[in-house]
Amino acid sequence: MVIIQDIREAHERIKPYIHRTPILTSTALNEISSSSLFFKCENLQKAGAFKARGATNAILSLSDEDAAKGVVTTSSGNHGAALAKAAQIRGIPVTVIMPHDSSKVKFEAIKEYGADIITCEPQHDSREASLEKHVAETGATVIHPYNDERIITGQGTAGLELMEDHPDLDAVIAPVSGGGLLSGTALAVKGINQETKVYGAEPDGADDAYRSFQAGKIIPNATVNTIADGLRAQIGTITFPIILENVEGIVTLTETEIVDAMRLIWERMKIIVEPSSSIALAAVLKEKSTFEGKQTGIILSGGNVDLGKLPFEI
Amino acid sequence: MVIIQDIREAHERIKPYIHRTPILTSTALNEISSSSLFFKCENLQKAGAFKARGATNAILSLSDEDAAKGVVTTSSGNHGAALAKAAQIRGIPVTVIMPHDSSKVKFEAIKEYGADIITCEPQHDSREASLEKHVAETGATVIHPYNDERIITGQGTAGLELMEDHPDLDAVIAPVSGGGLLSGTALAVKGINQETKVYGAEPDGADDAYRSFQAGKIIPNATVNTIADGLRAQIGTITFPIILENVEGIVTLTETEIVDAMRLIWERMKIIVEPSSSIALAAVLKEKSTFEGKQTGIILSGGNVDLGKLPFEI
Repeated sequence: MVIIQDIREAHERIKPYIHRTPILTSTALNEISSSSLFFKCENLQKAGAFKARGATNAILSLSDEDAAKGVVTTSSGNHGAALAKAAQIRGIPVTVIMPHDSSKVKFEAIKEYGADIITCEPQHDSREASLEKHVAETGATVIHPYNDERIITGQGTAGLELMEDHPDLDAVIAPVSGGGLLSGTALAVKGINQETKVYGAEPDGADDAYRSFQAGKIIPNATVNTIADGLRAQIGTITFPIILENVEGIVTLTETEIVDAMRLIWERMKIIVEPSSSIALAAVLKEKSTFEGKQTGIILSGGNVDLGKLPFEI
Repeated sequence: MVIIQDIREAHERIKPYIHRTPILTSTALNEISSSSLFFKCENLQKAGAFKARGATNAILSLSDEDAAKGVVTTSSGNHGAALAKAAQIRGIPVTVIMPHDSSKVKFEAIKEYGADIITCEPQHDSREASLEKHVAETGATVIHPYNDERIITGQGTAGLELMEDHPDLDAVIAPVSGGGLLSGTALAVKGINQETKVYGAEPDGADDAYRSFQAGKIIPNATVNTIADGLRAQIGTITFPIILENVEGIVTLTETEIVDAMRLIWERMKIIVEPSSSIALAAVLKEKSTFEGKQTGIILSGGNVDLGKLPFEI
């Protein structure tokens, strides 16, 4: 059971190795949304995503004995890159199991951080089989991208920093995929201010968190189809109960809404965000009646896009 | 004669209306450059460029009588947008005279900030003729983009903020075009730490500041040819003597070096900079022997690029 004190301890643990990312504001986007927005820029985090927080916390929490055997994960990319980088801090072996159709940028980043890569088919079963085989051979510790309390507390440190600087926010929105970021954010936010509402933002094409939230139990996606490649995971068995208890609602967004918000952020804020990040702004723009006139924190989760494959019509 | 006290006063004057922009660091770019870089992110400034600083200072320095008649400027874009926005603060008329071939993004920004636009031919003479005609008709005050002490002191406030946070920098690099940013930066930097060296970065295709600096007198460009559209102006009669006295050197860069540095910043720092900004990083990468092992501040001047016209080979 994660509590705010765990998130504070994780923050002390990882602080020397992560950026305290800036919180930016934009007059233009405040005008467009008729609200007051505070963007926590995890796209400017080390390795380009909030994932550095959870991964670093997990690695630094390992016993020396476990650490020596190395770590392994499956990942669509950002978590893998972050874990590889965090493993370097401690000088331990790290293996990343990645679908062969992951983006070139992500492959290169992970190689550059010194990880071994094992490629697999994009399907869940193939990933799990490769993972089990590697663990049996090496004794490595599996660091799941989100369904792990060490990861949840680590990801919660972004919300902690946001609330330290702006404790009176009316609401905070984070993207939701497996739920590591959203559950950690919710625990951090509610731990500091019970009055602050927390929302998730999720693509229509991978809306298991939304449907599970409505039903009160996990209902997996049958298919997944979204440009937001960081949001294709299934909600987790550890993250979901935290979300159910601490989150006010989940907003679902179309592909067009996601890409339009991405372009707005690029043009107005001059920062690079991936579609999985811009979805949180898209939620504010869609649910005007909820956020109008309010002070809302937005977790911009990452900025790892392939500049050769931009989704803008140009 | 501008002194550090003028820059401090300008800073107090404009502080409520500008962002104190973040100073970002990047482990990846430190490794690539074998140095320690501190990026002052004026691309994240209001209206997307440092120009907001000088323009706001100039507008707020006007007498009520002059302010009522409005202001006018010629500009390739960023200064025009910044002046329009600053005029809105004071609620006074503003006219921008722009070459008809300026980018769509820049036209739209200026219109959105409520300025009247008069288009002219790209040549210097056409701009000046349009300007004189407008002043004769309206009595508006001309706010030159750089050759004006109010502008120089305003632009110097970015360097002031950088040095307030990092007073022991070995060097600071700023792009140079008309010289407003470089002269203001040099005065701010030297006013706080005489030991800190200041450099300008300029495109090979518009290298009048470099040639003038070598010769000790202004030698204008015969032709101008560079992707860095914010760096096409001629060095000014007021800015040049300040640069000659306070700047250690000017580094010139090829178009390829400018675009390569731009891509590095986009990919590694996840922020959007225009070619006129990335040139300062290009200078660090080119002059390795000067900057290696040093702590160097880099003024990233702006981020106003047309997302439909990116210079990357994709």
